[in-house]
Amino acid sequence: MSTLLSRTAIVGIGQTEFSKNSGRSELQLALEASKAALDDAGLSPGDIDGAVTFKLDSNDELDVMHYLGIRELRWCARTPGGGGGASATVQLAAAAVASGAAKAVLIYRAFNERSGRRFGQPMGGYGGGAPQQDIHFSFGLDTPAKIYALWYQPYMAKYGVTNEDLAQYVVIARQNAATNPRAWFYRKPITVADHQNSRWIVEPVLRLLDCCQESDGGVALIVTSADRAKDLLQPGVRVLAATQSHVNSSQEMFNYYRQDLSVFEELPAISAQLWAQSGLGPKDIDVALIYENFSPIVYMALEGHGFCGPGEAKGFIQDGHIGLGGSLPVNTHGGLLGEGYIHGVNNLLEGVRQIRGTAANQIADTEHVLVSAARSAVILGKL
Amino acid sequence: MSTLLSRTAIVGIGQTEFSKNSGRSELQLALEASKAALDDAGLSPGDIDGAVTFKLDSNDELDVMHYLGIRELRWCARTPGGGGGASATVQLAAAAVASGAAKAVLIYRAFNERSGRRFGQPMGGYGGGAPQQDIHFSFGLDTPAKIYALWYQPYMAKYGVTNEDLAQYVVIARQNAATNPRAWFYRKPITVADHQNSRWIVEPVLRLLDCCQESDGGVALIVTSADRAKDLLQPGVRVLAATQSHVNSSQEMFNYYRQDLSVFEELPAISAQLWAQSGLGPKDIDVALIYENFSPIVYMALEGHGFCGPGEAKGFIQDGHIGLGGSLPVNTHGGLLGEGYIHGVNNLLEGVRQIRGTAANQIADTEHVLVSAARSAVILGKL
Repeated sequence: MSTLLSRTAIVGIGQTEFSKNSGRSELQLALEASKAALDDAGLSPGDIDGAVTFKLDSNDELDVMHYLGIRELRWCARTPGGGGGASATVQLAAAAVASGAAKAVLIYRAFNERSGRRFGQPMGGYGGGAPQQDIHFSFGLDTPAKIYALWYQPYMAKYGVTNEDLAQYVVIARQNAATNPRAWFYRKPITVADHQNSRWIVEPVLRLLDCCQESDGGVALIVTSADRAKDLLQPGVRVLAATQSHVNSSQEMFNYYRQDLSVFEELPAISAQLWAQSGLGPKDIDVALIYENFSPIVYMALEGHGFCGPGEAKGFIQDGHIGLGGSLPVNTHGGLLGEGYIHGVNNLLEGVRQIRGTAANQIADTEHVLVSAARSAVILGKL
Repeated sequence: MSTLLSRTAIVGIGQTEFSKNSGRSELQLALEASKAALDDAGLSPGDIDGAVTFKLDSNDELDVMHYLGIRELRWCARTPGGGGGASATVQLAAAAVASGAAKAVLIYRAFNERSGRRFGQPMGGYGGGAPQQDIHFSFGLDTPAKIYALWYQPYMAKYGVTNEDLAQYVVIARQNAATNPRAWFYRKPITVADHQNSRWIVEPVLRLLDCCQESDGGVALIVTSADRAKDLLQPGVRVLAATQSHVNSSQEMFNYYRQDLSVFEELPAISAQLWAQSGLGPKDIDVALIYENFSPIVYMALEGHGFCGPGEAKGFIQDGHIGLGGSLPVNTHGGLLGEGYIHGVNNLLEGVRQIRGTAANQIADTEHVLVSAARSAVILGKL
């Protein structure tokens, strides 16, 4: 299999520290991460002619290009929605390169999501985003934890997944973070008891330690052609497959209007695309990096991507499959719970590191990494 | 010449009426225009798997897909910034198709820009957008007319273009609108005296009739592969070239920080791309559709694209080149001043009509149409 998208590669990655109070502007964070990605690739600002970020990102492309020293941008595109579009950034950049619209695309995402506007807080005030005008808001669904907990409950009830079960994943994520110097929770592993002693956020679904962090920080990646990647500083990481999937009756946050709420419908749809594009299947994936705003989504994603059958994620995790020594190591950097929440784009950086062989918790002989972001995903591989 | 982007085509167009008070939601406008585009192409909602709109568009892709009946979206991308991205929508859609990321992409742009939030009004209040936080705001630059007039002045001063000269363009645009039933100013031509009697908005640059309209309305287009276009209802319109250009030191609105303010730097950069992609040059363009928030931009664009030399636009227009019988008919539908302001995307629809041969003011034997939107442009041609 070889699609046009697979003729592209990620050639540079960069980031700031992930913190709770960066002490500088979001633009500064975007620039620091972008400069680091350029240096990593061995490219200069003049080599960049495309930019991709989130619709929600506050950093104007024209500001980024000005302060970074990019001469001209021939491609600017933004992924709408939230973290579900994290991996879509690579799809948009790869399409630009594959179609000839741009030669080298800078992806950036940077925010002060802890010291500035906190995503986890109630969205009732001005500037809180669209949900304040949503009908669901009247029912008290004013934080992501409340909104998503309602969605997870049918899944957990159907398959007998309790909050204590969720600790199995969280302990692994925090263990991975504990040995990853880039992680906010570096050297801070937890036990099941710690998890169970953390306070309820939405009983009986989510405790504090089931929730992703609120983080300040910036990350950046550079996508160019696979051919060009061969001449650059780092081993290029091929975009073997990249897609989005938004299915009918889906909503970005209030995703309650489906035939079967226990199935994360986007993920089988995404998987079908990924396998078709890459010629690979679930058994070919060596490491899975899964967007987890909250711990239950990991369970639904393992099933949605076909790593185990419906309702089997709990047993799959209990049997040790997703640990560093398991058959499918998951969120080897600690995930958004352990490393930091840079809207899921930090997962892409970990994917690149695992393919390069430079991750803090490196999985030996990694050939194929899935970076899944709920509504978009990529498979990364060697050049 | 044949780039990958040129293997795509626009196969359907649709719109609502352009008005000052649509009496319905922006979502309704987006859906009506999208449905009309599908019907025009002979496609069903199930054929669509991509969506492109503006970052600023209020219509969520998931809502549009739900109410229209699209099954799955594998590509969502938004053009940042304002009307400068109007033609970038086609670039983003064409890249999706050319790279294989999507098969058929719906582009939509819909708003109540007169009965809802008016772009022409001072941006001081909440919800007025980013400029309220801009340093320039403190100097009273709080409407597009004021902001852009300051930018046009060096050009007009350098080449002796007066407000009375601008009437030459405005009269032509309004004449074209007068014979275009889709235009708000249908059957309402003006004279130079009408223009000169309209009130000053920013003296000595812009009078009321130099300003584009504030409009309610929705427009949509569908982009798919040139191969597939051959089997559909309408004669396909090939995307011969498509690009964006954002140059360093550029700003979206407060574009005052250049070496030479009398040159619209983006346009030579865009033109270089367009000619390289298409193998065409200025003399090959039969019709030019130029985004004009205000009349002076047409003068700068004619020069920026190389239709005449620096400072020659005034004479070029006086000599009759841009009228319906001229060597380069411009804004044959009446432009954003005469037809309506759907953020420039309505210009793309006129481009498609001119190639199809179905425009209200059809230019005979039209082979190549330039649709220029200041920071993005396409060249359309026959399949």
